[in-house]
Amino acid sequence: MNILVLGGDGYCGWPTALHLSRLGHQVGIVDNFIRRQWDYELGVETLTPIQSLHSRVAAWRECTGLSMELFVGDLCSYAFVQKVFERFTPDAVVHFAEQRSAPYSMIDREHALTTQVNNITGTLNLLFAMRDLAPDCHMVKLGTMGEYGTPNIDIEEGFIEIQHNGRKDVLPFPKQPGSFYHLSKVHDSHNIAFASKIWGLRSTDLNQGVVYGTTTDEIATDERLMNRFDYDEVWGTALNRFCAQAAIGHPLTVYGRGGQTRGFLDIRDTIRCIALAVENPPKPGEFRVFNQFTEQFNVKQLAELVSQSAASLGLKCRIDQVPDPRVEAEEHYYNAKHTKLIDLGLKPHFLSDSLLDSLLNIALRYQDRINPKVILPTVNWRQPKLASRLIERVREKEIGVVALGAGQTAS
Amino acid sequence: MNILVLGGDGYCGWPTALHLSRLGHQVGIVDNFIRRQWDYELGVETLTPIQSLHSRVAAWRECTGLSMELFVGDLCSYAFVQKVFERFTPDAVVHFAEQRSAPYSMIDREHALTTQVNNITGTLNLLFAMRDLAPDCHMVKLGTMGEYGTPNIDIEEGFIEIQHNGRKDVLPFPKQPGSFYHLSKVHDSHNIAFASKIWGLRSTDLNQGVVYGTTTDEIATDERLMNRFDYDEVWGTALNRFCAQAAIGHPLTVYGRGGQTRGFLDIRDTIRCIALAVENPPKPGEFRVFNQFTEQFNVKQLAELVSQSAASLGLKCRIDQVPDPRVEAEEHYYNAKHTKLIDLGLKPHFLSDSLLDSLLNIALRYQDRINPKVILPTVNWRQPKLASRLIERVREKEIGVVALGAGQTAS
Repeated sequence: MNILVLGGDGYCGWPTALHLSRLGHQVGIVDNFIRRQWDYELGVETLTPIQSLHSRVAAWRECTGLSMELFVGDLCSYAFVQKVFERFTPDAVVHFAEQRSAPYSMIDREHALTTQVNNITGTLNLLFAMRDLAPDCHMVKLGTMGEYGTPNIDIEEGFIEIQHNGRKDVLPFPKQPGSFYHLSKVHDSHNIAFASKIWGLRSTDLNQGVVYGTTTDEIATDERLMNRFDYDEVWGTALNRFCAQAAIGHPLTVYGRGGQTRGFLDIRDTIRCIALAVENPPKPGEFRVFNQFTEQFNVKQLAELVSQSAASLGLKCRIDQVPDPRVEAEEHYYNAKHTKLIDLGLKPHFLSDSLLDSLLNIALRYQDRINPKVILPTVNWRQPKLASRLIERVREKEIGVVALGAGQTAS
Repeated sequence: MNILVLGGDGYCGWPTALHLSRLGHQVGIVDNFIRRQWDYELGVETLTPIQSLHSRVAAWRECTGLSMELFVGDLCSYAFVQKVFERFTPDAVVHFAEQRSAPYSMIDREHALTTQVNNITGTLNLLFAMRDLAPDCHMVKLGTMGEYGTPNIDIEEGFIEIQHNGRKDVLPFPKQPGSFYHLSKVHDSHNIAFASKIWGLRSTDLNQGVVYGTTTDEIATDERLMNRFDYDEVWGTALNRFCAQAAIGHPLTVYGRGGQTRGFLDIRDTIRCIALAVENPPKPGEFRVFNQFTEQFNVKQLAELVSQSAASLGLKCRIDQVPDPRVEAEEHYYNAKHTKLIDLGLKPHFLSDSLLDSLLNIALRYQDRINPKVILPTVNWRQPKLASRLIERVREKEIGVVALGAGQTAS
């Protein structure tokens, strides 16, 4: 199949592109490198020294003989989207090309708007391009488990049968997203469901959990294919932050009481889930939702797992609580269904000691690249304010100049 | 109270501003006149010859001695919103200032994007302005009953208690909006709920039904205060289109089988509901949802009511079916709750013969202004395409030039 991987330079997009290429698909990568730009904006970088996308694609060709086409541009430009669709004629688009950080969206008004306008515009452009240029194409869209929030009932996969006053219907599962980023994904889901229905498009919404791990079989074949490892407060997940803290002997900082429970999965399962979704497309007009994760943990459990693994490597680390910068329940019921991808054949990699060891070893290998100043939370849900935050960091680091722009700002 | 009426030049906004002014509130009107611009774009106009906003406000002052402040600008500009908030210090904002037509949003990609980006950006700017400049201000936001779609269960007011696998929770009522416009309102509702929760803002989401009528007690005091009466396919509602068709002896055109059931209300109840919401604000942090309508009708019933009323005025009219340009259920269950505004004191004006007579008399009075070419549907949900549609109309009218722009286009 001809598969476009949108956001194919990113943490999930890059291993997905490699995996689909190795499976024999023709892969086109679309990216505008805004993610690397946002690192510059915030003064942070991936712990692992990744290559440019051009070098990565060249290395993959050298290692395997497999080519991938590169399209550099912005999905918010419809002229660009049209050109890519006309040239590549995709059978499927895997859509990772969105601003994907909750804290980034909560920095301030500009970042909230950038996130929502960027994500909605790109996805709407894709839907119109599919309708007009590739009506049989299948959109595999990355959503997030965070769309559901933490309701006091079991979370179903996208839809729930509701009995009410003696009648019943199967309706979209109610959404309670917890940041302007998570909201943008809810907006996307509604837009995609509607477009699929009225134009007969095929779509799969993957409500993904938190992804951990950096390496896949494909990435492991060559150092130049190395993946991102984000550990800072804006782009890093709790698990990555804990590993970085353990590697430099800092306490592991848990937000609030640490009872926040979420779904998690190994990046090797992410790429497998995408392949399963692509290779088993829905019917025309079908808007399908899968919950894409394999295990549930709460934040305190993660900290304890990292602490134990660190101890086995001779690292001692304390677990500290810091005030939760987010507005969220710190203890709550959580039970989310996730059987549809298993039914399609997913064999999960559960979080293991060896995986934690490998993450800690990455953190140790690159510990000189760890900037402890960027790990603790400064973005606060209750009082977003970019200027004061960045200026403070600049003062601490005694740097003289700072750019306050938001990359792409919507008015 | 100091009350800003955003979109105060519009069909609902103008009578609301007058009503709140008469009740003794200090009223500020915000508008950028994009609604009048969109009439120019489509080559349509209100049946009733309305005055400029400046003349309207001057006439109101002349008639009543009551002043209203005017702020001309775009809510998508945060600098403008800031200035208005700083100068007017609102206790409440009544937010009508959005692109409010489903067909307009379905013309093509540009119009879909304009609708969503405009509506989301304006509302987010307001939420940030409230947080930073008027944290005690109450946002009264116009949503739409169309956010719910037509589920096979009773529609509750914003939230529903769901029992599931032995547990229960009160969750947002699932949304199934039927156009890119209706989707934009769903996006707004999610954004407002979130902002209210994290910043402790007060908000009321009014899921309004289809409004009919043009006149209120305030408007009736002077011809110069006259309100809009839209009868074209893009801005006109079914009831107004039927009245215009009856007045010029055309068949009343029902979309599809005509079993589409919706909630309706008189514009005199719209302004009363707004006043009730404003004068009974929610608690800080509360996101409150009211279903704002008083009666349910289906499209065929409306056509029959107009036909009977027309007959009593000596007008004979046939009822025709045309293919439904929308993707919607043409027969369905519909039972939506609407008790919360009644509980606050609303005394409904139900749809009466005298109201229908008055609408038909307006259509007869201005029948020379009716352009029959703009009534039948050309915007189609299944195949939105501006160019062919407009070019066709231009050919029919033998006009040489047409502007294809969408007013404000988001890339």
